[in-house]
Amino acid sequence: MADQKVYQASTTAPVNIAVVKYWGKRDAKLNLPTNSSVSVTLSQADLRTHTTAACSSSFTEDTLLLNSSSQDVSGPRTQACFRELRSLRAALEESNPSLPKLSTLPLRIVSENNFPTAAGLASSAAGFAALVRAIANLYELPSSPTDLSRIARQGSGSACRSLFGGYVAWQMGWKADGSDSVAVEIAPASHWPTMRALILVVSAEKKGVSSTSGMQITVGTSGLFQRRAEIVVPKHMAEMEKAILEKDFQAFGKVTMMESNSFHATCLDTFPPIFYLNDVSRAAIRVVEDINREAGKIIAAYTFDAGPNAVIYYEEKDTEAVAGVLNGALGNLDGWQSRNIKAQSTSALDARAVQVLKDGVARVILTQVGEGPIRIEESLIAANGEPIKK
Amino acid sequence: MADQKVYQASTTAPVNIAVVKYWGKRDAKLNLPTNSSVSVTLSQADLRTHTTAACSSSFTEDTLLLNSSSQDVSGPRTQACFRELRSLRAALEESNPSLPKLSTLPLRIVSENNFPTAAGLASSAAGFAALVRAIANLYELPSSPTDLSRIARQGSGSACRSLFGGYVAWQMGWKADGSDSVAVEIAPASHWPTMRALILVVSAEKKGVSSTSGMQITVGTSGLFQRRAEIVVPKHMAEMEKAILEKDFQAFGKVTMMESNSFHATCLDTFPPIFYLNDVSRAAIRVVEDINREAGKIIAAYTFDAGPNAVIYYEEKDTEAVAGVLNGALGNLDGWQSRNIKAQSTSALDARAVQVLKDGVARVILTQVGEGPIRIEESLIAANGEPIKK
Repeated sequence: MADQKVYQASTTAPVNIAVVKYWGKRDAKLNLPTNSSVSVTLSQADLRTHTTAACSSSFTEDTLLLNSSSQDVSGPRTQACFRELRSLRAALEESNPSLPKLSTLPLRIVSENNFPTAAGLASSAAGFAALVRAIANLYELPSSPTDLSRIARQGSGSACRSLFGGYVAWQMGWKADGSDSVAVEIAPASHWPTMRALILVVSAEKKGVSSTSGMQITVGTSGLFQRRAEIVVPKHMAEMEKAILEKDFQAFGKVTMMESNSFHATCLDTFPPIFYLNDVSRAAIRVVEDINREAGKIIAAYTFDAGPNAVIYYEEKDTEAVAGVLNGALGNLDGWQSRNIKAQSTSALDARAVQVLKDGVARVILTQVGEGPIRIEESLIAANGEPIKK
Repeated sequence: MADQKVYQASTTAPVNIAVVKYWGKRDAKLNLPTNSSVSVTLSQADLRTHTTAACSSSFTEDTLLLNSSSQDVSGPRTQACFRELRSLRAALEESNPSLPKLSTLPLRIVSENNFPTAAGLASSAAGFAALVRAIANLYELPSSPTDLSRIARQGSGSACRSLFGGYVAWQMGWKADGSDSVAVEIAPASHWPTMRALILVVSAEKKGVSSTSGMQITVGTSGLFQRRAEIVVPKHMAEMEKAILEKDFQAFGKVTMMESNSFHATCLDTFPPIFYLNDVSRAAIRVVEDINREAGKIIAAYTFDAGPNAVIYYEEKDTEAVAGVLNGALGNLDGWQSRNIKAQSTSALDARAVQVLKDGVARVILTQVGEGPIRIEESLIAANGEPIKK
């Protein structure tokens, strides 16, 4: 009887929210983008994917279980990640014949998110980052996060940025094989640890257009898109990196908001047009503008991904003026208690916008800049190879 | 005692709705645009301004009464129109001393719209076109509509297009004095008389940003705007003129929709962003897409100006499939009866979008392509110079 030992390793990986947006591929198979992007990694205490990767000759095929639900692994994206990681392991095994031949064994991946999928938060980034990091741990690969980002990118473009904590750039690269399209750290979370994020989760609305197909329709039909990719984003990249290195929230906030608007403008300029912002999103923009007007400077910055949820960045010192004021205006919602936010009263917010938010926001998530993937002992797979029911 | 005769002349002038949009000035004082534009003139049976211009030595100052409400005429835009028209009259008087010296007399202008101002329809175009045309009639100027468009443009940019019927281009021009920034006819209404327009008037929402100030903020802050002005619009201008000359509704509709989206995309890319489209507008876009999908081709085309109202162009032969289907979906609203539209039932429209429209559309206006300003005898000023109360 062959060795039926179950090898395994676990990790957690974070969500990231872009402040310079990824939208458009120059190579759809390799997930090579038309422009570079920047994100802030969010704390895993609030939002994370926990993944255990195991392999064993007792397994019959590669499988993936996400939140107790079996996922298809036959798609080209997951297959690309498995293939590249196995190839790195096989090279290790070849150079050191004493290593167990894990590269030939079926993989079992078990993943859980600590946030509801229904929240509409881009979970694929954390998911693919955790999958790649967990298998790299299982295979004991010496690869750097940047090396692994090249693999995770092929699973989901923005996943490459979730292999780092703090402030992360995805350099678009220029090579046809994608070898220079990787994530790098601009600054660790400790460089600017006071960055906070408040997410207004908008009540469910069926998502009209997936980001994967949507971005390619934009590339193909928007007359404005090329200007964004060639002129606008390179300018925003330079401004954003400088703002982060100098911890300049005024500049960070302005670029963040203009970037979100530029991205959604190219969505609207798509034919047929793609709308991710709705009236609730517009109301969130309005109250952020009101908060900044009241402060006399930019202390809050909105950004929106491929959906109506608003992510509002602010600094810890402005917690009362941002989160406190929003708590005072929006009142009782799940989420405020997590960080002990005190409601502040104000007359600075547009009453109509506040009413639209009250009607349309389902919950808030309060979080902050955080670390990259963390290797942990807690496993989602038992020693006998069976997934652990929670 | 001096001659106290009241000289007067009257006209009506139409509303026009752009299919290639004007947004952005290269000279704010002269209302010189950053790009050319195209509009369809709408029938005055449904939407028109009626204006009487009078002058008399019995008047003490220049005045303007709009819908029985006194308007300020001291602004530079109205003053520019008065000055230019008086200058043309003065030249006539100089060459023919037998003419009465009207150019020196105070003007009294009385205007009435046959549509509610609250409908949010761009009434300034019809208003300034009627003002300029009425004074030109009063002064018996030999000026062509294109000559007068140069003057009306200084009152309100898009007013220059309301001096013609049918299909009208506003050529941006290049000269610093604006002398080549004028309206010209692409084709008269009789060339393509089957063009219909259906306006979904969205329930009142306070307009956030005036188009006059909004467009200059776009020029100053949007990273995408320059591409629209320099690349996108010139392409759309050529495509639109060809579509009109060939009466090709497929091409007309596609450019109309892409143009509207491109314009609103640059509004969204403004900082702070300008939103004219709301969830009701989005629902209108959705049902037009559904109508076209059901037809298997473009038979309806949406466009939006600086507000949430949808203008939907279609051809007479598709009345049932467009207006009939919308009547069937939206049900009882003011407006359908004006053209005897029969409600058609269909399952092709997204139910959620239909509900948003039912909740958000206040009335419909059904109209069609129409003629330019019409000189009429009906006067709004009595022989003694007093405004006629209606």
